[in-house]
Amino acid sequence: MRIDGKPYRTIWLAEDGWSVEIIDQTRLPHDFATTRLTTLDEAAHAIAAMLVRGAPLIGATAAYGMALALRQDPDGIDRAYDTLLATRPTAINLRWALDRMRRRLSSLPTGERAEAAYIEAAAVCDEDVGINEAIGSHGAALIRRIAEAKPGQPVNILTHCNAGWLATVDWGTALAPIYKAFEDGIDLHVWVDETRPRNQGASLTAWELNSHGVPHTIIVDNVGGHLMQHGQVDLCITGTDRTTARGDVCNKIGTYLKALAAFDNGIPFYVALPSPTIDWTIADGVREIPIEQREGAEVSALTGRTADGRIETVTVIPDGSPVANYAFDVTPARLVTGLITERGVCAATSEGLLGLFQEKRAAE
Amino acid sequence: MRIDGKPYRTIWLAEDGWSVEIIDQTRLPHDFATTRLTTLDEAAHAIAAMLVRGAPLIGATAAYGMALALRQDPDGIDRAYDTLLATRPTAINLRWALDRMRRRLSSLPTGERAEAAYIEAAAVCDEDVGINEAIGSHGAALIRRIAEAKPGQPVNILTHCNAGWLATVDWGTALAPIYKAFEDGIDLHVWVDETRPRNQGASLTAWELNSHGVPHTIIVDNVGGHLMQHGQVDLCITGTDRTTARGDVCNKIGTYLKALAAFDNGIPFYVALPSPTIDWTIADGVREIPIEQREGAEVSALTGRTADGRIETVTVIPDGSPVANYAFDVTPARLVTGLITERGVCAATSEGLLGLFQEKRAAE
Repeated sequence: MRIDGKPYRTIWLAEDGWSVEIIDQTRLPHDFATTRLTTLDEAAHAIAAMLVRGAPLIGATAAYGMALALRQDPDGIDRAYDTLLATRPTAINLRWALDRMRRRLSSLPTGERAEAAYIEAAAVCDEDVGINEAIGSHGAALIRRIAEAKPGQPVNILTHCNAGWLATVDWGTALAPIYKAFEDGIDLHVWVDETRPRNQGASLTAWELNSHGVPHTIIVDNVGGHLMQHGQVDLCITGTDRTTARGDVCNKIGTYLKALAAFDNGIPFYVALPSPTIDWTIADGVREIPIEQREGAEVSALTGRTADGRIETVTVIPDGSPVANYAFDVTPARLVTGLITERGVCAATSEGLLGLFQEKRAAE
Repeated sequence: MRIDGKPYRTIWLAEDGWSVEIIDQTRLPHDFATTRLTTLDEAAHAIAAMLVRGAPLIGATAAYGMALALRQDPDGIDRAYDTLLATRPTAINLRWALDRMRRRLSSLPTGERAEAAYIEAAAVCDEDVGINEAIGSHGAALIRRIAEAKPGQPVNILTHCNAGWLATVDWGTALAPIYKAFEDGIDLHVWVDETRPRNQGASLTAWELNSHGVPHTIIVDNVGGHLMQHGQVDLCITGTDRTTARGDVCNKIGTYLKALAAFDNGIPFYVALPSPTIDWTIADGVREIPIEQREGAEVSALTGRTADGRIETVTVIPDGSPVANYAFDVTPARLVTGLITERGVCAATSEGLLGLFQEKRAAE
């Protein structure tokens, strides 16, 4: 999408033809900066330290990380696979992208691997863009239907975390329908959950909506229920890091609470997902998906801009108080109105998903 | 309760016998400091700027604010009443304390008003302490029952915002049962919701539990649902700023989301309240209670301590993104397991409340 009118993706091959450029998302929203990745370890660090984040972008970065590794050591497929896979335990795309790369590359002569890896990584990126644009079109139809039911008033959409174009290669997942609807001229407004502890909503979703000109308002994560009780939310759309075969949704911590509020108030709650984030091997997300715990410093300290423009990190808890930091939660399928995929919208059920992905039915 | 072993209340008459001392809660958790109030305007500022907060402490501060006003102008009852009432629109205790002071004082000769006001304000404070200690005893019985059902394991209690002794004159409301149970030797642990945007959980509840030695862990507001799904919460207890005659509960924004999660997971959700916070004149909290909206800066900027010990305020959102800041929400009575009052525990229903407060039945 656009930043100050200039179109960007979140990851691209540098002009030198081999190094990889990314937007350093840890510096947003105060500073827009790009960073060059030149080695496997730099790619792994970019994922682990969340310079890149969002399931699809993690997958794309891992693919290019494999290319960077093989450029230095064409026999290093397994080492690169293990190094990259260890960076984030929850994201299903990470394993998907790495499996795809290894499958494509391991049977090739060593001399051809690096070049093939770059071609495959570029394909991973282009396919992600295509998938997300399709999600955008299917989801925009839902927004249009709501808009037609309340002429003259904006459609109010609540989203949690950042499932925008910054979380993917382009378009985003949860925000793709919003960008599509906005470009179609539909009057809309987005409630942006701050999304503690890392504030991806306040710092990334708000930044990208603002850069693109989409009307929005930042709220703390506690507010959504109140807004829903008072008719100020027409629709929720979130992304997901992992969806089970029966439609349970693992997404950023706090998503479950918003789904409960939407259900309690009869508001549609949709989850947008590219099909590579579906984990067909598991059903019960609450019981089967391990939830990443991250360091307490993400909760206890925040980084921002002082009045005179310095970037400072401040501690906001008392000395001596312990912290727990769970990164994701699971929203049971019973709370999800529907899943927006690149093939269309379906119910959050096994039958719904298999209806869109018939080839998985055959595989049973 | 105790700070570094020394017992404190949150508001007390200074040694000069007329000025009023408070703990400046805006400086917690990084700095423990007390402030002297000497005029009506200083008392009003202390409430409006949240140097004091929490419904009972707001009432006590308003009572002393009336005393400070009458010391300077014994004819100033109405001016003091209006000035103090305007400081916070939602807290029912504020009006309750001011009505009580006006009723007690307006028929007195002007020469007797100031002294009587100090006596009445001290009575407001002492009665609050008595009420809260009674809430503590009734609530501790609930905790003891859970403890007996899981011997050898701590009782995990989740709380939202600060309804501890810092929110009252002493003991607290939601935390009073926890302090009572802790002093009775019950093995317990408190999940402390950060409570954005003002972080009263992370900065005040954690600080007071830590000062008193109660085991606790700080979590962001998004986490509670996940913990409840995984059996890590045995009981929720929150406070309330205003409870309706049928048991709807207006409390810090985000309380509703935790109540939904508790209900969804079959976990008891109790609300602790001194009876002056019951608003017998209204029933439907969602429709009838106006929700205070505060300035966006509370969301966009956070204050904390830098690594080298300076207190800094940092902005955590992009330039140009609007913010909305709703301070409270309403939890419908259907989600509340019970109300813990100074007279005992009752169902969150009209019949439950009237069973404990028979005199209100007569008034119907």
